Amino acid sequence: MRFSAESTADGVTERLFTIGEVPGAVWAAAGATGPRPLVLLGHGGGHHKTAPPIVARARRYVTNLGVAVAAIDTPGWGGRPTPAAYEPFNAEIEKLAPGPALGDAFARRAVVAAELAIPEWQALIDALTALDWIGSGPVGYWGVSLGSAVGVPLVAAEPRITAAVLGLMGRETLAEAAARITVPVEFHLQWDDELVPRESGLALFGAFGSAEKTLHANPGRHAEVPRFEIDSSERFFARHLKAG
Amino acid sequence: MRFSAESTADGVTERLFTIGEVPGAVWAAAGATGPRPLVLLGHGGGHHKTAPPIVARARRYVTNLGVAVAAIDTPGWGGRPTPAAYEPFNAEIEKLAPGPALGDAFARRAVVAAELAIPEWQALIDALTALDWIGSGPVGYWGVSLGSAVGVPLVAAEPRITAAVLGLMGRETLAEAAARITVPVEFHLQWDDELVPRESGLALFGAFGSAEKTLHANPGRHAEVPRFEIDSSERFFARHLKAG
Repeated sequence: MRFSAESTADGVTERLFTIGEVPGAVWAAAGATGPRPLVLLGHGGGHHKTAPPIVARARRYVTNLGVAVAAIDTPGWGGRPTPAAYEPFNAEIEKLAPGPALGDAFARRAVVAAELAIPEWQALIDALTALDWIGSGPVGYWGVSLGSAVGVPLVAAEPRITAAVLGLMGRETLAEAAARITVPVEFHLQWDDELVPRESGLALFGAFGSAEKTLHANPGRHAEVPRFEIDSSERFFARHLKAG
Repeated sequence: MRFSAESTADGVTERLFTIGEVPGAVWAAAGATGPRPLVLLGHGGGHHKTAPPIVARARRYVTNLGVAVAAIDTPGWGGRPTPAAYEPFNAEIEKLAPGPALGDAFARRAVVAAELAIPEWQALIDALTALDWIGSGPVGYWGVSLGSAVGVPLVAAEPRITAAVLGLMGRETLAEAAARITVPVEFHLQWDDELVPRESGLALFGAFGSAEKTLHANPGRHAEVPRFEIDSSERFFARHLKAG
């Protein structure tokens, strides 16, 4: 892990880094020392590690929850080269209009993205939890849409992640991994999602193996999750990422 | 409205009253003067105006939200005589084991309960908003199960109620009233509800006419709504019942 830039504003320090080939960012309170919980943010399609909604969420979690927050670019996004394995999916996606078929093609491409990204996230957790200002305390994961296509199998595979906010994805590619998740989950569904059929999203919520899982459904399209759900996710992490 | 008893504990004053034949309770900060938002609590079946979960919720909303809170007994509960109109339903209910058929019978009886209760709630709002320590500010309503069987048509009929937390009921008896509701709604659904089929609850959520409506679904049976949803309802009222 190599740090390349550092800046502080409003009490929050942002550090850019690369880990292997993967660019990332980590946020923590300015002057942070000692262990604190870690929240990982998995960006959506078309976004990247420092897209404005990711940065805003990161700064908010740092300020309000006292955690560290980290994000990395998913292979093929944020300036990373497009993996060759995406090419057949991209050729299909170019022909599709917005709608459930496009959502399905995104989801199948994202299966490949997840296979590539999961070891990157695991290496990131290794590196971050070795820092004396993070340490090996609780780890949470937030990510919807592409961030859940990667996040569901990541949370299923990674026992260090103990709470997750997920959503805006359906059952078809993710139900098997969801069934292996047992940590608390908050799941977001958009009632009028043009990419993910309602029944498919409800079925994915049903598939999680977690004893504590909570579905938040709101009217609107895929990208229209209400802003008050940021507050809700914060309270979810506050409940589940208490240190020690 | 005749007040009959008053007691204060932990900074919250509880006043018992009757309004016509209807027994009720109202809670506010000890020594409260001047206007404040009002939250109405509609108890569930088998409960009453001062059942322990109602009192606990009332005290919490008073303390954390700075509102006044009021509850009344629904006809046939809390010591109120059983209305004659319930008798055919009660005869049916006695023969039924717990399950969706029992839930359906409860819902049909509750249509009658709502017809009786709605004018009582409206008289209560008249009386409470005339008190100088409540005034005619925003009014919210919380009630699930029987509290929604009454609450959905009440909120549809009563323009002074500007935000509502509802749930644990299905579509069959309530969809028409739900479609007339346009104020923000938080709706609770239990994923494994033994009385309300999941599809029926989801369809009732879908039926609300509100631009802002949010579904919170959690695993578990009818009476097992997680305690963290109290916190969520509090934040919902905090967002929507700002004075003025």
